[in-house]
Amino acid sequence: MASKTFYAVIAGVGAGTGRSVALRFSKSYPVVLLARKPESYNDVVAEIKAAGGEAIGISADTADPAAVAAAFATIKKEFPDKKLAAAIYNVGAGRAIKPFLELEPKDFDDSLAGNARGLFNFAKNTLPQLEASVSDAPHPPSLIITGATASVRGSARFAVFAAGKFAVRALGQSLAREYGPKGVHVSHVIVDGVIDIPRTQGYTVNDGKPDGKISADAIADSYWHLHTQHRSGFTQELDLRPYVEKF
Amino acid sequence: MASKTFYAVIAGVGAGTGRSVALRFSKSYPVVLLARKPESYNDVVAEIKAAGGEAIGISADTADPAAVAAAFATIKKEFPDKKLAAAIYNVGAGRAIKPFLELEPKDFDDSLAGNARGLFNFAKNTLPQLEASVSDAPHPPSLIITGATASVRGSARFAVFAAGKFAVRALGQSLAREYGPKGVHVSHVIVDGVIDIPRTQGYTVNDGKPDGKISADAIADSYWHLHTQHRSGFTQELDLRPYVEKF
Amino acid sequence: MASKTFYAVIAGVGAGTGRSVALRFSKSYPVVLLARKPESYNDVVAEIKAAGGEAIGISADTADPAAVAAAFATIKKEFPDKKLAAAIYNVGAGRAIKPFLELEPKDFDDSLAGNARGLFNFAKNTLPQLEASVSDAPHPPSLIITGATASVRGSARFAVFAAGKFAVRALGQSLAREYGPKGVHVSHVIVDGVIDIPRTQGYTVNDGKPDGKISADAIADSYWHLHTQHRSGFTQELDLRPYVEKF
Amino acid sequence: MASKTFYAVIAGVGAGTGRSVALRFSKSYPVVLLARKPESYNDVVAEIKAAGGEAIGISADTADPAAVAAAFATIKKEFPDKKLAAAIYNVGAGRAIKPFLELEPKDFDDSLAGNARGLFNFAKNTLPQLEASVSDAPHPPSLIITGATASVRGSARFAVFAAGKFAVRALGQSLAREYGPKGVHVSHVIVDGVIDIPRTQGYTVNDGKPDGKISADAIADSYWHLHTQHRSGFTQELDLRPYVEKF
Repeated sequence: MASKTFYAVIAGVGAGTGRSVALRFSKSYPVVLLARKPESYNDVVAEIKAAGGEAIGISADTADPAAVAAAFATIKKEFPDKKLAAAIYNVGAGRAIKPFLELEPKDFDDSLAGNARGLFNFAKNTLPQLEASVSDAPHPPSLIITGATASVRGSARFAVFAAGKFAVRALGQSLAREYGPKGVHVSHVIVDGVIDIPRTQGYTVNDGKPDGKISADAIADSYWHLHTQHRSGFTQELDLRPYVEKF
Repeated sequence: MASKTFYAVIAGVGAGTGRSVALRFSKSYPVVLLARKPESYNDVVAEIKAAGGEAIGISADTADPAAVAAAFATIKKEFPDKKLAAAIYNVGAGRAIKPFLELEPKDFDDSLAGNARGLFNFAKNTLPQLEASVSDAPHPPSLIITGATASVRGSARFAVFAAGKFAVRALGQSLAREYGPKGVHVSHVIVDGVIDIPRTQGYTVNDGKPDGKISADAIADSYWHLHTQHRSGFTQELDLRPYVEKF
Repeated sequence: MASKTFYAVIAGVGAGTGRSVALRFSKSYPVVLLARKPESYNDVVAEIKAAGGEAIGISADTADPAAVAAAFATIKKEFPDKKLAAAIYNVGAGRAIKPFLELEPKDFDDSLAGNARGLFNFAKNTLPQLEASVSDAPHPPSLIITGATASVRGSARFAVFAAGKFAVRALGQSLAREYGPKGVHVSHVIVDGVIDIPRTQGYTVNDGKPDGKISADAIADSYWHLHTQHRSGFTQELDLRPYVEKF
Repeated sequence: MASKTFYAVIAGVGAGTGRSVALRFSKSYPVVLLARKPESYNDVVAEIKAAGGEAIGISADTADPAAVAAAFATIKKEFPDKKLAAAIYNVGAGRAIKPFLELEPKDFDDSLAGNARGLFNFAKNTLPQLEASVSDAPHPPSLIITGATASVRGSARFAVFAAGKFAVRALGQSLAREYGPKGVHVSHVIVDGVIDIPRTQGYTVNDGKPDGKISADAIADSYWHLHTQHRSGFTQELDLRPYVEKF
């Protein structure tokens, strides 16, 4: 049965990981879905409602501090009495993967803003709420962050994408160290492989072997596990990759 | 309901993590508990049986190849028709923590044998069985390895203990890369903190704050999550630490 | 004897590491010193000239693409026939170290721009020149980047500073992988400790033990070693810390 | 001019890295070369003497504590008045690279003994001497350890080799943390590539590109740099790889 008192918010909802995470968390909490455009979350909101859950979608560019603040003001109006149980940051942006000399300053700025500044803004709005839930939430209030291979490896041609993802990981580590002792669980997940979503249907990876792309539902299961970990045993970082992935 | 066809084996069972893991996995599988002495596992076997589970204990020093082979021959006799679903290596040994010049060659040998050679022997006996279960096991067959802070950090005075734990991690990584593509999930867990077990009752850690020691049941929950991960999203390594732990 | 054909450029020159690096490289090359304000490099330019070296200072904010391009246009005018042997990026900025909720979006932007976008701009202008020097430079042309503890560790209160430094490290790794095979040596140095410079004279670190702060000249010696490494044995990353530093 | 008061000892001398390191250090110190068999060091001893240096060779299996103790007793007799300035551990052994199930317990034991127990024994005999040299040695007394790709990565088929190399790295880290504050510099070098030595002449690596194998002399230059670092800026770890190496 879903909580009446607590809600979850997922930033970066489209047809992939964000959708699966929203569906998974909607089994226990009303959920708020954030995306830049309504067409990204409308179907997911409908899907959750059809399954008996509660969901609202709000348009916001997480890279923009004012837009994020406005989104959370809307949430406050929609859910005046609810407290925040879980915040998932699943935003990825600025994915210009090119030889370095072809990259423009705008590519750099887009990656840093879209990936890391977005998390900065999202964390500013969610951490105080998560901290306020520590005493009575059903599980330790959680900020869970989606990372990628490029979070820990700067490959050739990935200069700006890796810069954005490394910066996200730095924020996550720092927030884990500051907010862990307050009882808030901040966790970073290195998704090391291609996710099996509509956008990647045409990709052949891992020689086309079955389950060679990561199931978005599998990611959601691990996020839910992170959220439900006992505070005496928080995971700060884990990796997720297909059994056939080279690493 | 527990499987009739599959079993799990846990090496390194005493009153702590091994017990919690055995209890957790016994909800789904008959379990075999290995320890050097019967007094380490007898109570846990009884506890599992009292709860309606199936368990047998076998004495073996995992550092000794012949003893491990003999233990698995016994298992074969006890469970002639069962296949292996999960193998947990939770052995820690040779914990001489001293200034380097006070360490003896025997301390080095004990740490390497007790930690890493034990895993070598355990993996030799379990990986072929795990691989044989890939096609029909309820979850991807799993080898889960307990690590420690010293698995990734050679602190002053920890020379031989860290050498043993680093070597365990090396084996785990290598086996993950060799057996992942065969469908076997090899995972390494960095337990970064003091575990809340009878032996540590008197320790004051993290200023005595509540849940400042890691709950062995919390560790067991994460091991079970690792075991049940979909093969498209295996975790190779995660850390576990109390929310108040400095890191 | 200093080269007539090649020059070195050091971004981020003040009274500390930049000065020592400039002095060290000026023994072999004419050097160009970049800093936001002339008062940062004027004394160093004078010091190098007094020692018989050749040096020019140029004011530029490395975070600003146009300013960096203008600086390199000036260099082209000053040194029309010289080729680039070594580029050192020693810029650090945006050092707001505070509880996360006291950090402003501006702090985030300043750290990312001052640290990482500065390197992006500097690399755009220097890598093509370095590549053009591969065939005839006395040592493999080098881009050497100053990092910090926060390049590999997101400590509590260091969210934005670590984000900037992680992003720098990502760029460095990616550029090393792209430009190494072209013969350009890209190296990242983790300076893990307080540097012994005028600004830190009053700090007591490592219990005030002698040499408990890192000598800027020692840093410069390691940079020079990196520059002179044979191309069959490039170092991508090294750490530097006082013998008494805890790590 | 070579020191009359201090000497260096290099364990693991053959026709490759050990030879180059011995030659490099013999420019400044009399050197002692250790290897299991005289045919490994005889030519190098002759080469050093021909160049005007001082060298002696001693046969010893570093994995055997008694053999190492005997070797250092011999050194004491040969150099009764000399103090130790630098100790280089360049031993590699037990290199069984095979599918895990083809590895035998003996392979495991050989790798752990040949790599890590050898360092344990070598460090026991050299660290007290190095510490005794701190006050008057020309450079901070140094223990420098040769590592490999397998020191930080457990690849498939490398289970026992990586276990040995990870254990070496653990010892090195722990000793660095214990002996750094005493003024002894303990450093670990990750040699990530094939070294250009007689044994590898026939190997084609990096598509046969020039300098695609690491020059042993280049390794020796970096070891010498590590040895001469100022104590305010010790490097604990660096990597070395050919410019064309994938990583």
